[in-house]
Amino acid sequence: MDTPVAPSRRITIVDVAQHAQVSTTAVSKVLRNAYGVSPKMRDRVRQAIAELGYRPNAGARGMRGQTYTIGVMLPNIRNPFFAEILDGLTDHLADTDYQVLLGPGCNGRDAEAKVTHAMIDRSMDGLILIAPISTRAHLDHVAATVPTVVVGRHGRSRAYDSVADDDFAGAALVVDHLVELGHTRIAHIEHHETDRDCLAEMPNAIRAAGYQQAMRAQGLADEIDIASTSYSQEGGYLGTQQLLARPVRPTAIFAGADIVAMGALDAIAEAGLRVPEDISVAGYDNTTFAAFRPISLTSVDQAGHQIGANAARLLLDRIADRQRPAAQVKLSPTLVTRRTTAPPPTS
Amino acid sequence: MDTPVAPSRRITIVDVAQHAQVSTTAVSKVLRNAYGVSPKMRDRVRQAIAELGYRPNAGARGMRGQTYTIGVMLPNIRNPFFAEILDGLTDHLADTDYQVLLGPGCNGRDAEAKVTHAMIDRSMDGLILIAPISTRAHLDHVAATVPTVVVGRHGRSRAYDSVADDDFAGAALVVDHLVELGHTRIAHIEHHETDRDCLAEMPNAIRAAGYQQAMRAQGLADEIDIASTSYSQEGGYLGTQQLLARPVRPTAIFAGADIVAMGALDAIAEAGLRVPEDISVAGYDNTTFAAFRPISLTSVDQAGHQIGANAARLLLDRIADRQRPAAQVKLSPTLVTRRTTAPPPTS
Repeated sequence: MDTPVAPSRRITIVDVAQHAQVSTTAVSKVLRNAYGVSPKMRDRVRQAIAELGYRPNAGARGMRGQTYTIGVMLPNIRNPFFAEILDGLTDHLADTDYQVLLGPGCNGRDAEAKVTHAMIDRSMDGLILIAPISTRAHLDHVAATVPTVVVGRHGRSRAYDSVADDDFAGAALVVDHLVELGHTRIAHIEHHETDRDCLAEMPNAIRAAGYQQAMRAQGLADEIDIASTSYSQEGGYLGTQQLLARPVRPTAIFAGADIVAMGALDAIAEAGLRVPEDISVAGYDNTTFAAFRPISLTSVDQAGHQIGANAARLLLDRIADRQRPAAQVKLSPTLVTRRTTAPPPTS
Repeated sequence: MDTPVAPSRRITIVDVAQHAQVSTTAVSKVLRNAYGVSPKMRDRVRQAIAELGYRPNAGARGMRGQTYTIGVMLPNIRNPFFAEILDGLTDHLADTDYQVLLGPGCNGRDAEAKVTHAMIDRSMDGLILIAPISTRAHLDHVAATVPTVVVGRHGRSRAYDSVADDDFAGAALVVDHLVELGHTRIAHIEHHETDRDCLAEMPNAIRAAGYQQAMRAQGLADEIDIASTSYSQEGGYLGTQQLLARPVRPTAIFAGADIVAMGALDAIAEAGLRVPEDISVAGYDNTTFAAFRPISLTSVDQAGHQIGANAARLLLDRIADRQRPAAQVKLSPTLVTRRTTAPPPTS
């Protein structure tokens, strides 16, 4: 489909190559930001593109097999952590011609299938799936069809690259920090999970397992206490209401994500309790919300920006070479301690 | 492009019509959720679709002129207000076959042009542009090419439908509330604007004008004090730093958006001041952040969910009838008072 802004004769990649006095291969390389392009070559091609007003036509490229579109599937647009990943991703793609289109609001396997199929139908060049809950079979299938990077999910696949954080270690950072402050009654709010693939591979399940392992390692097996809700503000709110109603209240809550901690703080405020005087709260993701001074939430930093940048790099790599072996990038989390964690109240 | 999940012979709309024993027109109507389809007819067609495993192929439909894709351009994925609009939009589209794809991160006219062109190139059936800052000429041009609804921008166009809030009235709600509490030194943080189209049409400019008009109406023309930064957390933070450094500090800050108020609260906490004891803060948008109890921000509710639902309805209408006159929907805001606004300190 042509648009009225296009000139009467469409400028092609051949025109750009002639104008820049380079090969069309070189232009193509610059367009997809491939390795091995010198800065000088890039400037030359970009100048020709600007001077001619060349606008790659996605439809036409689709016919030849490239649309310069990357589809990103996001589970929840309200989770500020995904904005960090997205920033890393778009920053890495800023100098390329790739356009990112987001498929939002995936809250189930059917919804994920609909979004991934929609992206494949629209001939996107590659997909980045953030924390997908689909079966491994579906993910392998998608990746066999189109270059795919899976973010925030563990497990090795031969079909897709993946980027994840060491969630097991991250959970231990929180437990150890709280134990050091003197807490023993440390509860956890997890995202409820029953599916076998998800239990083995989803960050939420790994964090819950890491929490339990760290509690045992600290000799606190008897204190393990999990509220099983969801990774959302509502889930944090409901989980905290459950925990506050226990005969003996926990003195610290490890929320599996910052957005869960947000709901926890909401419920604690509603109950008329103070943070951290009455109860400590820690999150996971170190989002802008955690750094926000009126809240100042202790949280695990899993470097969302870096995760996004890695995902973009791997995807461009794979688009260029679909045969290379799948790569797994695992990042190491760090703990950022802030005002919401302190020693437990003396009783 | 075909995908491996498709059966060996692709199921077509004709198969669905035969199976459901209805006309292909009826199937098409159900697919695009047109008016005049009985619930019974819809159930029948949907059942046939499910039984046959019919999956409309966007590429194929593209050839015929429909891709069942709606492109939504968002200026900033971090602003929680846009999530409200998006919820209203996707809820309205939930029973249709339309797939929403978001173009994120538009922070300038070049970026907006890139995204809108990308969406047009990908043959999307319609666009919803949220708070675009492009020239009127560009918007009219886009709307002449593809059915378009503009959200959060004032001004009448013959080419596109629009949905906006009465921002002028909304700003007055805040000023009047603060005056009633006893404030006179009421400052405003605006999004800096110099472009003529934007000054006339953007919500931020209308809110700033509404603030000034309301201050004059209250006999407080001499107290008008504006920090001109941006509608972002950073903008609220920097604007508040400016305001707190005034020889005589304001006793209340009207932040042009909740995300701006978030930055304001951050700067106030950093300065060691208390809200609302030392200084009152009000926002605009009534997002989930405002309702969050530890913050409990007074804010103007502009019904983001309703805005999104209206935008989706208008767009489906226009896709069905591109000739109908353009519609403008203007919603009336209300004030939600919470804990961040109180009488000024007695000095």
